[in-house]
Amino acid sequence: MFKTLKKFILGPPLASAEIHEQRLTKKVALAVFSSDALSSVAYASEEILLVLVTAGMAAVQLSLPIAIAIGVLLLIVVSSYRQTIMAYPQGGGAYIVVKDNLGTYPGLVAGASLLTDYILTVSVSVSSGVAAITSAFPPLYPYRIVICIFFIGLITLANLRGIKESGAIFAVPTYLFIVSFTVLIGIGFYKYFFGPAVMIPEAHYPPASHALTYFFILRAFASGCTALTGVEAISDGVPAFKKPESRNAVVTLLWMCVILLVMFLGITELARFYHVLPKEHETVVSQIARVVFHEGPFYYLIQAATAMILILAANTSFMDFPRLASWLARDGFMPRQLSSMGDRLAFSNGIILLGVSSSLLVVLFAANTHHLIPLYAVGVFISFTLSQTAMVRRWIKLKSKGWARKATVNGIGAATCFITLMVIASTKFIHGAWMVIIFIPMLIAWFLSVHGHYHNIIDQLHPDLTDLLPPKLHRVLIPISTFHKGTAKAISYALSISNDVRAVYIALDPERSVKIKDIWKNWCIDIPLVILESPYRSIIRPLLDYIDQLQKEDEDQLITVILPEFVAAKWWQQILHNQTALMIRGILMFKQGVSVTSVRHFLKY
Amino acid sequence: MFKTLKKFILGPPLASAEIHEQRLTKKVALAVFSSDALSSVAYASEEILLVLVTAGMAAVQLSLPIAIAIGVLLLIVVSSYRQTIMAYPQGGGAYIVVKDNLGTYPGLVAGASLLTDYILTVSVSVSSGVAAITSAFPPLYPYRIVICIFFIGLITLANLRGIKESGAIFAVPTYLFIVSFTVLIGIGFYKYFFGPAVMIPEAHYPPASHALTYFFILRAFASGCTALTGVEAISDGVPAFKKPESRNAVVTLLWMCVILLVMFLGITELARFYHVLPKEHETVVSQIARVVFHEGPFYYLIQAATAMILILAANTSFMDFPRLASWLARDGFMPRQLSSMGDRLAFSNGIILLGVSSSLLVVLFAANTHHLIPLYAVGVFISFTLSQTAMVRRWIKLKSKGWARKATVNGIGAATCFITLMVIASTKFIHGAWMVIIFIPMLIAWFLSVHGHYHNIIDQLHPDLTDLLPPKLHRVLIPISTFHKGTAKAISYALSISNDVRAVYIALDPERSVKIKDIWKNWCIDIPLVILESPYRSIIRPLLDYIDQLQKEDEDQLITVILPEFVAAKWWQQILHNQTALMIRGILMFKQGVSVTSVRHFLKY
Repeated sequence: MFKTLKKFILGPPLASAEIHEQRLTKKVALAVFSSDALSSVAYASEEILLVLVTAGMAAVQLSLPIAIAIGVLLLIVVSSYRQTIMAYPQGGGAYIVVKDNLGTYPGLVAGASLLTDYILTVSVSVSSGVAAITSAFPPLYPYRIVICIFFIGLITLANLRGIKESGAIFAVPTYLFIVSFTVLIGIGFYKYFFGPAVMIPEAHYPPASHALTYFFILRAFASGCTALTGVEAISDGVPAFKKPESRNAVVTLLWMCVILLVMFLGITELARFYHVLPKEHETVVSQIARVVFHEGPFYYLIQAATAMILILAANTSFMDFPRLASWLARDGFMPRQLSSMGDRLAFSNGIILLGVSSSLLVVLFAANTHHLIPLYAVGVFISFTLSQTAMVRRWIKLKSKGWARKATVNGIGAATCFITLMVIASTKFIHGAWMVIIFIPMLIAWFLSVHGHYHNIIDQLHPDLTDLLPPKLHRVLIPISTFHKGTAKAISYALSISNDVRAVYIALDPERSVKIKDIWKNWCIDIPLVILESPYRSIIRPLLDYIDQLQKEDEDQLITVILPEFVAAKWWQQILHNQTALMIRGILMFKQGVSVTSVRHFLKY
Repeated sequence: MFKTLKKFILGPPLASAEIHEQRLTKKVALAVFSSDALSSVAYASEEILLVLVTAGMAAVQLSLPIAIAIGVLLLIVVSSYRQTIMAYPQGGGAYIVVKDNLGTYPGLVAGASLLTDYILTVSVSVSSGVAAITSAFPPLYPYRIVICIFFIGLITLANLRGIKESGAIFAVPTYLFIVSFTVLIGIGFYKYFFGPAVMIPEAHYPPASHALTYFFILRAFASGCTALTGVEAISDGVPAFKKPESRNAVVTLLWMCVILLVMFLGITELARFYHVLPKEHETVVSQIARVVFHEGPFYYLIQAATAMILILAANTSFMDFPRLASWLARDGFMPRQLSSMGDRLAFSNGIILLGVSSSLLVVLFAANTHHLIPLYAVGVFISFTLSQTAMVRRWIKLKSKGWARKATVNGIGAATCFITLMVIASTKFIHGAWMVIIFIPMLIAWFLSVHGHYHNIIDQLHPDLTDLLPPKLHRVLIPISTFHKGTAKAISYALSISNDVRAVYIALDPERSVKIKDIWKNWCIDIPLVILESPYRSIIRPLLDYIDQLQKEDEDQLITVILPEFVAAKWWQQILHNQTALMIRGILMFKQGVSVTSVRHFLKY
């Protein structure tokens, strides 16, 4: 039944040979890889305003120059990544590029930063997408966390189905977003400059609580830098493109850059034109759309498109996180199971890991975008900086045609990203960036210890011929609580594997001990019944003590503990059984020289 | 190491014989059992105002008559419970009383209602307690969910330690709350009537959005009825009192009633005097304390006392929920493991179940008291009504001295509670009460199916002599991925229990298949190596198919699958191993005729 369900939800399994068919056209790739970058339009302007508004009316006017500065930063980063894509047609994720050119340790820094940011991308995008929904339907606001978890679950499932079908699912919303926002910006500008008098609401500036210092302007800039997150997605995903991969990827990157620039600057200006300021229960985009379209169907279309692209932006991470994790796993820095492909040619374990960790983050931050965003962007700019530095190093090493020019482009990229990183880390430190700054080194330390462990076990696991020798003595213990069909089958099994079998009864209650002795006599069971006292009602302790005692008697013996278990006819009944067996198994797991066997009895109803 | 940690946190185990020493004095019992009832003072007045304020200024003046009506209801309920305590010195929880006098089904309704309400009590109290903290320290507001989970965890641990020590921990905060609130009310009244001119802030009533209908007034009344939750706690816990149990319990109940009445009416009046209205980020009590004491140390004392008693109010449920669950489990309506006492004479499983489910609720409702409260009180009044009806039935049946008077008291109680229940269910239905009204029948249905299942298995588990016969053929399979010390030990083990042993290799990659065949040849391993193809990269599917094939060949055979597993030297390394073994074990669990044995190899570092 589970299998049928899995097949229905995830689709039939795909053979290993089918992997090359899963390629994306430019149009689909734009939808799949740029949803992250484009969707930041939905919150980046709001984040800038959220900082500026605390310094009063004059400060809010600075939103345009700040947005332009971020636009210039975007152009620099895109020029740098153009070169990365051409140089790494097999996929130039920061981890690969940095490891290749700067060595393993910087590579791990890039890897850890990216993984952190992929998780944050999912949490921020989904929270922000759900904010678009609750802006349009305020009664849903209290349920926003559950709605977020629901959407994360949905994307997780879509990705477990595999990459190509995801592409098809995600193309429509991305293009809907691009078209509807272009219309919003176009009509918004037209109405402002030429249109019939639009009711522009009075601006209600809250009293300024901060002076407009340079630090403050930098903080607003840092907040807006979230607009750049996701720009690197295309360079990570080059192999997913149709041939010629690099060329197609570069064209897609440029398209994405232009669209992002127009939309980000457009929304920022519209907010200024129409005196829109951040509110707790409604997003800036929602407010703009309300003013421009009033509450007609087009307002709801904008909200729907925003919600969809944001929720799908999370999808970019669902493609990149598992892939990066599989590379790290292949190199021995993360658990191996992250590198195995599932039935549907997707890295299932990585997908599930990302789904779970981003859900956790959403819950911890109560799906509040403004509290999540300060954590964001730090990781992105660490990986940008390292990746561009690596490219500079590469050009200098290779000295191929035009290397000096290329090194300069990447050098400017690296320097700009580094300065931006410092700005973000310092201005956002107390607002949450510190968590990421602590988390990334911890993650790297973990990578290194995983790597050390995999290295260590090679020696420990080298087999000897003596390992194949059979044990001198094989004792079997069967913990029982009463005598039923399950116990009987366990006894029959035990007798078939050893001639030293004992039933063990933990006496919690003297009356029942007498009863079990009677049963033993009545049924003429010819294995010894050991009764262990338990004054503290523990079932485990006396059993462990007894095993210790047996092991002291004879060094070279093997003990098998047989646990009679039930398999219930219905899934929910399973919780009514085997809890004690489960506990015994868990504790015995850490006991040397003991093997545990489950002998199961299937219940019919 | 885990054991030492457990002992440090939970204390050394207590012997079964020590159970009777764990009794409470009246003073400690007042603290332990009334924290739930008293703590509702912190939110009940606010909930009334929250409804009234939407109907404008005139409506707010109705808070006093509504509070007085609730006070009268309290007196009626307490008089009823006085009689229950005297009649049930062994503990008159609604489940016991109702089952005794009205039969099993009504008993289950009462049981389900109470369990639901205990979970809600924990969620509401902790959320409201944390709201007191975030009112005093607004920067903590975004972290409220995490703080809630932290406190629920803390109470869970305290209760796993056992009842008497909990009493000692909880006495101080309850008395601190009683004293500080009495001072607050005293000074608040004094300053209002006689004091030097206090700055009474102007009232800012939001524009009325509702007409002041009778339905509306009833809704405000229903909201305030949360003040009565927890009143039944003492009657459930009679056996925990020092002797004479009933008398001590009744005296404690009356004390609790008086204190609750004074505080509830006092706070409601103070809110009216000082024009305090509900705000999103600050509780009503916090606002009152700020006006009366300004922001001095006494303000913070009030907030601390509120937070403490609310968080500890959850403790009442942590005593009652596990006890009720153990009764239901003993009667076969809930899983049996809920009726077993842990090391420290506490029902550990019930405690953990309550901790987990209330945490879940806090997360789902984002720790928002106003969204949780409409779910609350429905269950309480169902159990009040049933329990009082049961008492009426009892008096009529027994016809003991003064039965007519006693039946009248309980009859009035039952009728009043039933009317209140109808008011709550109808006025709060769309605000969340519907969830509880759906959940309780579902819970009862589950009780009944658990009961049915336990009844069903008795026949199925009756052993036959044939169950003890050994199987004709015992085949052993060892799934392997490579040849190492773990594999070698598994082979040695397998050979000691059967002479039909096969190693099974799932070929994901043709190169590695050749390699494993070479190893087999080089090491001269004399068990057959079965290589199974897996075009879809599934490890499970080919293994299952192979087992099916073997089982078809011969009906009466037993198959044991041996899984070589590693036990890592450090806990965190464990996740790097055995994932495949775990998965195989999980799937094989549902395969008839297959036993699974873990043969473990311990890693040294």
